[in-house]
Amino acid sequence: MATLGFQVLRQGPGEAAVGGVVGEGHLNLHGTAHGGFLYALADAAFALASNSRGPAVALSCRMDYFRPVPLGARVEAVAEEVHLSRRTATYRVEVRALGKLVALFTGTVFRLGGEDVPAGTGNPTQGEA
Amino acid sequence: MATLGFQVLRQGPGEAAVGGVVGEGHLNLHGTAHGGFLYALADAAFALASNSRGPAVALSCRMDYFRPVPLGARVEAVAEEVHLSRRTATYRVEVRALGKLVALFTGTVFRLGGEDVPAGTGNPTQGEA
Amino acid sequence: MATLGFQVLRQGPGEAAVGGVVGEGHLNLHGTAHGGFLYALADAAFALASNSRGPAVALSCRMDYFRPVPLGARVEAVAEEVHLSRRTATYRVEVRALGKLVALFTGTVFRLGGEDVPAGTGNPTQGEA
Amino acid sequence: MATLGFQVLRQGPGEAAVGGVVGEGHLNLHGTAHGGFLYALADAAFALASNSRGPAVALSCRMDYFRPVPLGARVEAVAEEVHLSRRTATYRVEVRALGKLVALFTGTVFRLGGEDVPAGTGNPTQGEA
Repeated sequence: MATLGFQVLRQGPGEAAVGGVVGEGHLNLHGTAHGGFLYALADAAFALASNSRGPAVALSCRMDYFRPVPLGARVEAVAEEVHLSRRTATYRVEVRALGKLVALFTGTVFRLGGEDVPAGTGNPTQGEA
Repeated sequence: MATLGFQVLRQGPGEAAVGGVVGEGHLNLHGTAHGGFLYALADAAFALASNSRGPAVALSCRMDYFRPVPLGARVEAVAEEVHLSRRTATYRVEVRALGKLVALFTGTVFRLGGEDVPAGTGNPTQGEA
Repeated sequence: MATLGFQVLRQGPGEAAVGGVVGEGHLNLHGTAHGGFLYALADAAFALASNSRGPAVALSCRMDYFRPVPLGARVEAVAEEVHLSRRTATYRVEVRALGKLVALFTGTVFRLGGEDVPAGTGNPTQGEA
Repeated sequence: MATLGFQVLRQGPGEAAVGGVVGEGHLNLHGTAHGGFLYALADAAFALASNSRGPAVALSCRMDYFRPVPLGARVEAVAEEVHLSRRTATYRVEVRALGKLVALFTGTVFRLGGEDVPAGTGNPTQGEA
């Protein structure tokens, strides 16, 4: 989101990387990066990666938090495709800061077009979503 | 988060409600509220509700998205406690806009103190976290 | 699943209840009900509730475990519909034993038919899945 | 679970692999492997991997389903450690059948001992769970 000052670092078919810096306005009650800030970063990478396959909307996401991230730290979210079918797709996003994995995001989208998986990028089978 | 202009609407033991309005800076590629914006709102209610029981940090959260939310819509996130034990607690947060449920958040925290469940608010059993 | 000896207790549009008893073959390393046993019970209720709306397949589920369940305990899973749209639906399943909430399941399905939401059971909006 | 006829294929510090075959008693309403069967397999690998670090109990798990698995198929679940700290740990379990990824499981445990991360296997930081 523009509001949070994120930058797109990389973008390709089914993948993306987005970076940001923890600012004063992004701190939680404990003085470290708000869970919502880290999620928004992961979600931005997830959105770029999934929409690279055609229009898609998020259905369900999971965020696991591993380590607190201090003020001023640079954070990077890297999204990769785990599964791509005609109607849905799932992405894994690793969130890293200070050389460590600080959170793991897993998200599933519904693909609005749903007909146009580029050749060679997935193996939709009868019966799959 | 201050950055996103949220307001605390209600706060009590194990519960909280937070509100916000979808602004220009909160829109996604489809022109509706970014998933990260709705999550941040739910997460803010979750943080207030869980920290009302003593210091706690988020471990794992799930966000299910049901409906797109348009620019200018007022959104409200209401958190309630599903389970409270000595070491962990789980909250359910309903996110509503325009009179409808637009998303459902489920989050689990690790309780940093972990000794001080107020009498009558839970039933920690031997063997539980 | 037949294998696990579950019984359907109740079934209606968008809802279901399934019961089972923790047997010797369902215990984990700690001597209490295996997480997979409790999940299978919740999943059975989820499957009945979601398929009551027409054929549907599970996309993504979350299971939160709150309390250990001892050998011989009777466990009940009650599924209710949280959201129903043309293409997807989400259910919440509470798992109870010995008078307490022992686990919470949240699951989303992809609806294979996707055209036939019975009148009055949901409010599919343009742009939703 | 003994009931489901799973076999441990591999087991090491923070990792495990478990296999099984889809039998008649494991089919869902659509005639393919029940979601609960695939979850139980993933959960078995998760339990072995997490308990290899000392006693641990599951807190919250996510299961994403990608493809239907037919009767008679051999299924394998491989668990790897994503994060290990003093109090919690997170595992990713890939479930494969017929040469394809059919489901992805992500699970977090609470570590009951919580003091004994073997040297070199993790980097618990002050403030982490």
